[in-house]
Parts: sequence; C-alpha cells; structure tokens
Amino acid sequence: MANDGVDKSEETEHMIEKDAARERSNVLGDTKEIRAVILSGFGGLNKLRVAKKAMPEPQEGEVKIRVKACGLNFIDLMVRQGNIENPPKTPLVPGFECSGIVEGLGDNTKGFEIGDRVMAFVNYSAWGEVVCTPMEFVYKIPDEMSFAEAAAFPMNFVTAYMMLFEVANLREGMSVLLHSAGGGVGQAVAQLCSTIPDVTVFGTASSFKHEAIKDSITHLIDRNADYVQDVKRISPDGVDIVLDCLCGENTGKGLGLLKPLGTYILYGSSNMVTGETKSFFSFAKSWWQVEKVNPIKLYEENKVIAGFSLLNLLFKQGRGAQVKAVIDKLMLLYKEKKIKPLVDSLWALEEVKEAMQRIHDRGNIGKLILDVEKSPTPLMANDSTETSEAGEEEEDHEGDNGNKERMPFIQ
Amino acid sequence: MANDGVDKSEETEHMIEKDAARERSNVLGDTKEIRAVILSGFGGLNKLRVAKKAMPEPQEGEVKIRVKACGLNFIDLMVRQGNIENPPKTPLVPGFECSGIVEGLGDNTKGFEIGDRVMAFVNYSAWGEVVCTPMEFVYKIPDEMSFAEAAAFPMNFVTAYMMLFEVANLREGMSVLLHSAGGGVGQAVAQLCSTIPDVTVFGTASSFKHEAIKDSITHLIDRNADYVQDVKRISPDGVDIVLDCLCGENTGKGLGLLKPLGTYILYGSSNMVTGETKSFFSFAKSWWQVEKVNPIKLYEENKVIAGFSLLNLLFKQGRGAQVKAVIDKLMLLYKEKKIKPLVDSLWALEEVKEAMQRIHDRGNIGKLILDVEKSPTPLMANDSTETSEAGEEEEDHEGDNGNKERMPFIQ
Repeated sequence: MANDGVDKSEETEHMIEKDAARERSNVLGDTKEIRAVILSGFGGLNKLRVAKKAMPEPQEGEVKIRVKACGLNFIDLMVRQGNIENPPKTPLVPGFECSGIVEGLGDNTKGFEIGDRVMAFVNYSAWGEVVCTPMEFVYKIPDEMSFAEAAAFPMNFVTAYMMLFEVANLREGMSVLLHSAGGGVGQAVAQLCSTIPDVTVFGTASSFKHEAIKDSITHLIDRNADYVQDVKRISPDGVDIVLDCLCGENTGKGLGLLKPLGTYILYGSSNMVTGETKSFFSFAKSWWQVEKVNPIKLYEENKVIAGFSLLNLLFKQGRGAQVKAVIDKLMLLYKEKKIKPLVDSLWALEEVKEAMQRIHDRGNIGKLILDVEKSPTPLMANDSTETSEAGEEEEDHEGDNGNKERMPFIQ
Repeated sequence: MANDGVDKSEETEHMIEKDAARERSNVLGDTKEIRAVILSGFGGLNKLRVAKKAMPEPQEGEVKIRVKACGLNFIDLMVRQGNIENPPKTPLVPGFECSGIVEGLGDNTKGFEIGDRVMAFVNYSAWGEVVCTPMEFVYKIPDEMSFAEAAAFPMNFVTAYMMLFEVANLREGMSVLLHSAGGGVGQAVAQLCSTIPDVTVFGTASSFKHEAIKDSITHLIDRNADYVQDVKRISPDGVDIVLDCLCGENTGKGLGLLKPLGTYILYGSSNMVTGETKSFFSFAKSWWQVEKVNPIKLYEENKVIAGFSLLNLLFKQGRGAQVKAVIDKLMLLYKEKKIKPLVDSLWALEEVKEAMQRIHDRGNIGKLILDVEKSPTPLMANDSTETSEAGEEEEDHEGDNGNKERMPFIQ
C-alpha cells in the first residue's frame, strides 16, 4: 500500500452520514459537507480514514469554527485504542483542540463575531474542516499568533499551568522532575518554569532530542536511564514536584523522589499504550498494577499526590470558567513573549496515521499539528505503518522500531 | 485515689535521673533540678507523674528556656499510648511546644538574648520547668502576647497555615470542611480562613460547643451527624478542601466530598485513640483499615490527597527554615489582630491527667495549656480518671463517659 497510500487516504467515505450517492461523488467543494478524520472503530491505525461528513451547525451557546489547525495529543492515541475511561461510540471524529476562524454563531454567544481568530477545546470532532463547540471553550487569539501555534496552545499550556500553579504551587527555588521533556506538555512546562526565578528542571527524553531541548531543561536524563539515581546524584533530597505522564511503576518512583511537602502529579498514562490494540486489557491491567497509596504514609512523609486530567475537568466536571481564567493568564505571558508553543511538524489530515506513529514512537520535539489546508506529502517507501487492504487485521506493529527519523520535519 | 490525688501528683520521683537522696529531699528550690511531667511507660493516664529531673543545659546552637506555659495536643495522647510511628524510649518528658523566657544560650545562638520572651518547638521534653531546644525552633513573641497564648500558638497555627496555604492553596471563594472545629487546630483554621474573602467553612463539633464557636464557622454540623449528607445538602458540588484529623473511613468520605481540583489533607488520626491502651494494635489496625488510593482514580477525578505532620516536618525532615518563614507571616497576622489563639483552660503540671482526659473526651473549646507556675486545684470527688494504687492496670476507662463537663473552665 506504500505507493497507493495517498490515493487511499484521499478517499472520501461516509462513516457517520451514510450516503452512497455522495460517497462516489468525491466533491470536495460541497458546502453541505466537510472533510474530517474518522475513527471507524477502536484499534490500530487502520481504523482511521479521511471522509466526508455533514456540515455541523451551531446550537444555542455554540460557536462554529472554520478549522485551520488541530492539535494532536497522546490522549488521541489512547482514544483510538479505546484505552480510556468509558469510551464513546464509534464512528467518531477525534480531536480535542483546534484553531481557526469563527464562521457562525448560535444564539446567546455574546462576545464573539464572525471572522474572529480563535482557538478552542472540543469534546471530540476537532479534526475536521468545521467544528462547533460551546463558547465557554473558545478563546480569541492575538494577531501575532499563528494558527499552528494556536492549535498547539490550549491543551499543553493549560495542563502545564494548572499542574504547576494550581495543583503544585510552584515557587521560587523549587525543583521539578518532568518526563517526556521534549513533548508538547514537557516543553510548555519548561517554559512556564522559566518564568519563576531559580527553578531547576530535571527532564527525561530520548537522547537524540537532548541537543534540541538542552536550553529548556536544567538537567537532561536519557529516557532509558535510571532517572531515580540520576536525580538523587544531583539532588540527594529529591525534588519538589514530579509530573508523571507515564504511570505504572513511575508512581512509586516519583513519590520516593519527593521532598517533604512535595507534590506528585499523574497527568497521563502513556506507558499503557504499548501497541496498536492492547487497548482495554492494557488499561485494566495498568489499573491494578499501579501502586495504591496509603494516606497514613503520606501523613508520615508529608507528601502530596494528585491526578490531573484537563479533558475530564472541562467536559465532565464543568470547570470551563476556571480554565478560561488560566487561558487569560497564559495569553498575557504569550504577549510578553515569555512563552511560545513549540511546533514539531505539520501534517495533512490524510497524514494522521503517520503523525500518530511519530508521537507513538516519541519522535516529536514539541507539538504535532494537523494542518487542514495542507496537501498530503507522498508516503515514503519504507513506511511501516501501512495497513493491509482488508484493513481489519489488528497487528501490534507500533512500537520502538528504531525508525524514529523516517518522517521529515516539516517545521 | 480521688482524695489523695493531689498529694500523689505532687510526689517527686526520679524517673530519669535516679538519685535516692534527692528523691526524699523534695526541695523545689533546688537549682540543679527541675519539675517535669514524666511518662514512665506507654499506656494509660497512670503512666504520668510529676517528678524532678536534672536541669538541662544548652548545647551548641541551643536556647535554654525557663518555661511558663506548654501546649497540650492530641498527639500527646497518642505518644502516651505509644500509638505513633517508631515511639521513643521511656521514661520521657512529653510535650512539643512551650513558651517562656530565655535563661541561657549555647554557643552560636546569635539573635537571642537572655530575657527574651519566646515560644518554641521542642522534640519532646517541653512539659518541664526548663527546656533546651535548637535555636531554629525558637521564635520571639510580641510584648502583647501572653505566655498562654504563645504556648497555644506554634503547633496549631503553623499546622493550619501550612495546610491551607502551602499544601492546599486556599483562595477567595473556596470552601473548607473541618473536623473538630472547636479544637485548637480547628479554631486556628477558622481564623485563617476568615483572612481570605468569601471562604465557606463547614465544621463538625460536639453540639454543646456550637454556641461558643458559631461565629467562627459558616455551617456547624454535629459531630455525630452524617456530615457527608449535611455538606451535600448545602453544597451539592462538595468542597475545595477537606482537613481530616480523624482518619479511617473519613478518608474515603472526604475524597468523595471534594470538588474537582480539591485537596484532601490527612493531618491526624484521632479515631485511632479509642481507649487508654489500645496503642500499637490500634495503630496497626488503622493502617490496614484506611482506604488505599489509586492514583488513576485521582487522575480521572482531578483530586489531590495529602498528608501533613508538622512534627515529622520539623524533627525528621529538617524543614525548620520553612516553618520559621511561616511563623514570621503568622506573627504579622497576630500583630494586625487578624488571628488570636483561643485558650480553653490552664492546668498545673500536676493536673496533666485531667487535662488529657478533657482533650480525649473532646471537652475543650480551643487549646489546653499546662501553666508551669500554677498550683493544682483539688480533684473533684466524682473524677473517674483515677488509677489504682498499683498504677499498672491498663483498663479502658477513657472514652465518651458523658462526663465532659466535670472539669471547671479555668479560662
């Protein structure tokens, strides 16, 4: 499929709105339809297609956005696998954040006008040409912010800010241990730490990234090294804050590295994603494998353990106003040029599989962006992410395949 | 023993420095000896005596304090039972905080002078006429602060301040659930909450205290009521901060009551103290009975769980400088008349058993103070805390004996 991959991925399919006549028409200019990434079922990369779906229209309180760029996050890989709490029904359009231009407004959407440049959180469906989302999740962006930057902004910077300042109370002179320091959240954390005097950041990352991110991290540690020993050698007392996106055995290690009154925050569980399809079994196994914490031990050791999930906060727990206040603070920091999203690469919607493979392989430095207006680049001959013609086999051929550099950096 | 209790408790005994000749001399004015409360072994109230011991002298970096008043805390009951992590050897002089006048200085104690009025943390041995403690745990007090207030200050206000502002990050508009709202920490928490605009405090306390503390707590709940339902009725979303000094099943209840991003802090385990001598067994049982917490659940629910032990922070974890900075902030609040320790009652050293019984029965409103210069008041005829002449039986006759009001309020 390597050579016909482009044609294949440009196919239009109605996964949600079945319409056999239109399915064959392939008319991209149809104003009643939009292109979107469709996840047809939980599983491997072969479950993803670009297809047409009906144009969404804004309900009361919603803003309709002509999407320019979408953020791709590790959680999207977990969604693809169904490896999340209470997964939604498929088919669905993935994606939780985007940037673009306001194209329509539902009733009671005061404060927004058609033509506004915005970024937004979306509870799924961000990865399409047009999306509607409640106005509480939409934020205007400054003229100087590109759409790619704006799509790379909300999830990573709000997560980083709330963890550092609202959960852990980062102050002058503190130290932070950060996993996946080269990723989107990692680089946002590093930038926010640099706004506070005298903060030491320990960061783990694959060695090939160290040169690129060395200015943002005080002490870089190889991803495969024994980071507990490395941190203790430099700081025998440990650290004030541990930010863990890995989960599993890292919880115990992180708690062990905390100074008194230190805070461990679990904000992801990327170690649960080990292949294409381990999915629910992997999730259930991880749940039981994670070390449970006895509160009396926290009492004796003066430690704090926290969990942070921005998506749950926004879409299940109704804290949109609190997040909006954080976005306002972050926009000030952006305008003062104290923070700036680091974009790893831009990808066409049709390249979503390759983009996902890159994030799975931890090949990225900064954020991966789906650029809705971009044409797909030809796949390279040695691409290993192809799926069979049948498209239904679920083989475990994601993983550390030593092929991290096969995709070109586009930005 | 009811009628000879006074004589008995005035007996002098050398529990630490055996000196048979001096033991019979009973010369209170002997400058080489001091009176102190001695815990002869772990167990019931009968393990406590007032006796003489050698005058302590300051080592390098230590301050020698002529004690005027000592704070009595719930943790002292747990110490008496040996119901703590790694209990020290007996005999020992209990007590972790006191106030008094600087009477001597070791080398390298710059910043203090003989005659300074101070309060101090002491790692045991506070309950005597003279004590020595490292200067990092000694703080000067304002002229307008009485010794009783100063002895009621450090443990309760530092605990309350660090929990609210350094662990939980209390901000405008938040809500707090507080157990034992009438106790020393409880009243300190209530006062500190009142320094932040629009903070709602839910407090549990025995009904007979409600009238006395109603101005300090927004919503008072009876100690024996189903506080979960009471809080939910008033605030269906729950609260931002839960401060739990009870432990056990209250951990799960407290976590359940947290709003997203809310913080549960365990800072005591008074439910472990159920009688005189349940001691280690009770501690071990509680350890296993406390609900363990899965970090993935914290992640899904956006919750924070913390433990706070000021004694461990000071004496095991070396955070004296951080605590000193908190004391400085608290002293400013005191001078601005925003906070003021609430003293429940003053007791002679010889009345320590009755004072302990009162705190065990949750009879106090505010802090119990041992006043070193106070003469013991006669025991009342119906006192039930007496121990046998043999003094070694370990009966479980502490508890809710419906006799909470038998001891007079002295202040």
